[in-house]
Amino acid sequence: MSDPAQLFGIDLGGTGIKAGRIDADGLGRERREVEARINEGADAVCDRIAQLAQDLGHVGTLGIGVPGLIDRELGLVTHCPNLAPIEDYPLKVELARRLDITPEDVFLENDANVAALGEHWLGGARGEENVLTVTLGTGIGGGLILGQRLFTGSTGLAAEIGHICVDPTGPTCGCGNRGCMETLASATAASRRARDAGLEPDLRELSERARNGESAPQQLLREVGRDLGRGLAQAVMLLDLECFLIGGGFGASLDLLLQGIGDGLLERSYGRERDSFRILPATLGSDAGWIGAARLGSQAD
Amino acid sequence: MSDPAQLFGIDLGGTGIKAGRIDADGLGRERREVEARINEGADAVCDRIAQLAQDLGHVGTLGIGVPGLIDRELGLVTHCPNLAPIEDYPLKVELARRLDITPEDVFLENDANVAALGEHWLGGARGEENVLTVTLGTGIGGGLILGQRLFTGSTGLAAEIGHICVDPTGPTCGCGNRGCMETLASATAASRRARDAGLEPDLRELSERARNGESAPQQLLREVGRDLGRGLAQAVMLLDLECFLIGGGFGASLDLLLQGIGDGLLERSYGRERDSFRILPATLGSDAGWIGAARLGSQAD
Repeated sequence: MSDPAQLFGIDLGGTGIKAGRIDADGLGRERREVEARINEGADAVCDRIAQLAQDLGHVGTLGIGVPGLIDRELGLVTHCPNLAPIEDYPLKVELARRLDITPEDVFLENDANVAALGEHWLGGARGEENVLTVTLGTGIGGGLILGQRLFTGSTGLAAEIGHICVDPTGPTCGCGNRGCMETLASATAASRRARDAGLEPDLRELSERARNGESAPQQLLREVGRDLGRGLAQAVMLLDLECFLIGGGFGASLDLLLQGIGDGLLERSYGRERDSFRILPATLGSDAGWIGAARLGSQAD
Repeated sequence: MSDPAQLFGIDLGGTGIKAGRIDADGLGRERREVEARINEGADAVCDRIAQLAQDLGHVGTLGIGVPGLIDRELGLVTHCPNLAPIEDYPLKVELARRLDITPEDVFLENDANVAALGEHWLGGARGEENVLTVTLGTGIGGGLILGQRLFTGSTGLAAEIGHICVDPTGPTCGCGNRGCMETLASATAASRRARDAGLEPDLRELSERARNGESAPQQLLREVGRDLGRGLAQAVMLLDLECFLIGGGFGASLDLLLQGIGDGLLERSYGRERDSFRILPATLGSDAGWIGAARLGSQAD
């Protein structure tokens, strides 16, 4: 029944559902998108996902990325603030039933993790042995590829890098700690730091000014990058990482963050040189999620 | 020629060479030790290692742990301050020749990594899926088991946890940074902190006093433990670790450090409870190295 030449992935977000079919060699692909309309409930969302998959000619396995915590054994989402109706809903079982496949053929994973998998398979981190992907948005998310495989940790919470401590005397974080990396280097934090410095808080505008040679925006973005690099240095010490992939909306300013990231990495790692590191841009944009989700089946043991 | 029922491991240290034979099921074992006499040169050390292995009835593969940086491709030790004569010496080739095996049957690894492998195979971390081993001595070393296998990183430097930053305003470290975990929680650091606080700097004596109910030693060891926990929390955020194994000389004070380690882990990790973590004592003592070295062959791909 399964056609391993064709892979199918879903990126279930708070506002939209992206679905795609991709050849197993990564070459041909087709993509659709509909509104999530989560307020209509989990069953309706599940119907829409199944319909999208069928429209794409679904056969075989299906991978899904969701912005929440996953219970892999039960095959459901336990905590998902942006899609509360699907919390504790038997997503794998219900999708399998609609697609006439077994629940074991439905793969469920956190959205940051599937994005990492997508970027590793076909994006900016293609073929890297070990890489930490970093998503700079409202917060900072991450995904970890070790030995060419997604590493999710003991309970699926690996690469929660937004809460790596950078400055114990820094801003209070939503998690209750102080100076977490995302209080200093997320898009939200960068915008706040710009405003506090009397600069343009819109990060696209700020970045444009920096690219046009204005030194205060350049300096601010270098400082933000340095705090990011200081946090990532902990991953260097622990995992001997050489490669980081930077994505998310604020990742578009990587050219301006790069120098600072290198400063911070060097400052807090030992025995490395500036050229020890490769800091790569994400290249798949909003397609990373469904592409990585489609890849999930091939990562299963 | 190979007898996979018998494994052979060497722990090459600055002063002594430990060698052992162990049944593949981990049950029977035999151990020998001789002085390293490194001043006699690399060839003589190599002769002694080969002789020890032969005395133990060597057949098959041989694993060696050394206190230095390893070039896995070339099969030699590139940086080894305590055993300078073996730096850049073709250790694998020379041992293979003496034992009449191929260089591919000689496995070379950092001493902290083989100790982690030993404790994971037959010691305190037996069977753990993911565990970070922590060696508290002059500095702080580490070894990382992920998915039941030794993880060594992109260049073999994974688990250099002594240089995880705990306090950016803390003591200057030998590496040039400030507030590295080992400036706050190694045996050396604990002893210094005790002396600075007007307490007994001998850690065995200090620990005995704490066990006898003296509150100042108890408090100091809890504070040292907290800084250790703060550093280890970075590994929780990055790898979602639940299990840590504590060894090394100062590891003997784990009973007194435990409460503080939990404090620090909770303070700097997000979404965990005190019982999210298992903090285990190392149990193999000075045998962890050769036992883990003997296990190296079974970890090869």
